[in-house]
Amino acid sequence: MPGEHIIQALDAEFAKLNELIAKMGGEVESQLDQAVKALMGPDPELAKAVIAADARIDRLEQNVDLAVVRMLALRQPVASDLRNVIAALKVASMLERMGDYAANVAKRSIAIASGERLEELKSLPSMAGMVQDNTRRVLDAYLNRDVEQAIAVWESDRDIDALYDTLYRETIGHMMRTPDAVGAGAHLLFIAKNIERIGDHATNIAEVVYYLVTGKMLVADRPKADKSSYAVVEPKT
Amino acid sequence: MPGEHIIQALDAEFAKLNELIAKMGGEVESQLDQAVKALMGPDPELAKAVIAADARIDRLEQNVDLAVVRMLALRQPVASDLRNVIAALKVASMLERMGDYAANVAKRSIAIASGERLEELKSLPSMAGMVQDNTRRVLDAYLNRDVEQAIAVWESDRDIDALYDTLYRETIGHMMRTPDAVGAGAHLLFIAKNIERIGDHATNIAEVVYYLVTGKMLVADRPKADKSSYAVVEPKT
Repeated sequence: MPGEHIIQALDAEFAKLNELIAKMGGEVESQLDQAVKALMGPDPELAKAVIAADARIDRLEQNVDLAVVRMLALRQPVASDLRNVIAALKVASMLERMGDYAANVAKRSIAIASGERLEELKSLPSMAGMVQDNTRRVLDAYLNRDVEQAIAVWESDRDIDALYDTLYRETIGHMMRTPDAVGAGAHLLFIAKNIERIGDHATNIAEVVYYLVTGKMLVADRPKADKSSYAVVEPKT
Repeated sequence: MPGEHIIQALDAEFAKLNELIAKMGGEVESQLDQAVKALMGPDPELAKAVIAADARIDRLEQNVDLAVVRMLALRQPVASDLRNVIAALKVASMLERMGDYAANVAKRSIAIASGERLEELKSLPSMAGMVQDNTRRVLDAYLNRDVEQAIAVWESDRDIDALYDTLYRETIGHMMRTPDAVGAGAHLLFIAKNIERIGDHATNIAEVVYYLVTGKMLVADRPKADKSSYAVVEPKT
């Protein structure tokens, strides 16, 4: 059996790992919030700040990786400790990608800052707000190993998908009616997709929490309300 | 020092891990090939087969995860062995996402099978061919720890980005001139983006190889030829 001091050392390292991951989650949430503000302003200077700040999230992920490799090498955890270490690595990699998506929202907000202001833009802040909520809630669920909350996040993603689906169809309709809006509309489609993908990654983190707590996989047949990959939008006459 | 039989056991497990990853890489390459064939046919039945086959790649990733956790628990590798195990975990996760992108190409090919056949579709097979090449080459680089080949893949991604950028602009132009092509055009933009993202993940694997061999990070200032996030396409008069 490992001695008391080894267990204390491991606990301290897990606490540090959790701190890094909580920080990453906070950054992602804030970056998404700022990216959407930059889009809605429009505020290209704020957008540039969001793009630059993505490097902070990348560095935090590298810190998680280093901490994980160090823990594996020095503590050689087994059983649930080992699963928790690997989970931290996976969650950090998901958060890093969520940061990339927020940065891409900011990039595209610059491209459309001076162009046609599509009315469909107005749906984005509420959609992004739901994604921010889910990001915060799933991080809490992760840090507290709260499986009920993880399931709630996982299930509520369908509402985000449904909003995205509506936005997709409405934007396509607008682009059909207004050729000058096609360029901005395409960016808007990608922006909405980026936000929807951040939400997907929140559900991926929920699946990690579920697996950690129950030892089982959250079944992969979550009802997907995002049907936009199959969307055929007919011109309105 | 670990005994000879421990080293042999570890070598055998690394060989098994490499086999799983090689298999994942082969699946991704084949799925992308089939997805583009389904798109160009168009062949919705083939597209459905590609979507269904994505579960195979997911299962292979789960097998990699299980093998990695097993190796960490039983062999407690350190130093370069530990880095190699963690690298396998990361590469498998990248390949799993590459499979997701190929499945999304197949999904969208169904949506546009019966719609307007945009002439810009014709650029996709050569772009996808380059991405398939890079996927195969970077997997070889990974399995052989061939840093020169990893750098070659990493550098050649700029050609894929440039092709994507051209396709993006041409498709937007087409959508502006032809409102009836907007729905299919939007799917084409996402399809091209998915293929470009598979290429990006090949460069991520190249970065893992570089890090494994040299212990250093491939500098993050790779010249990005994909400027489409910033694209403002003016209507042609």
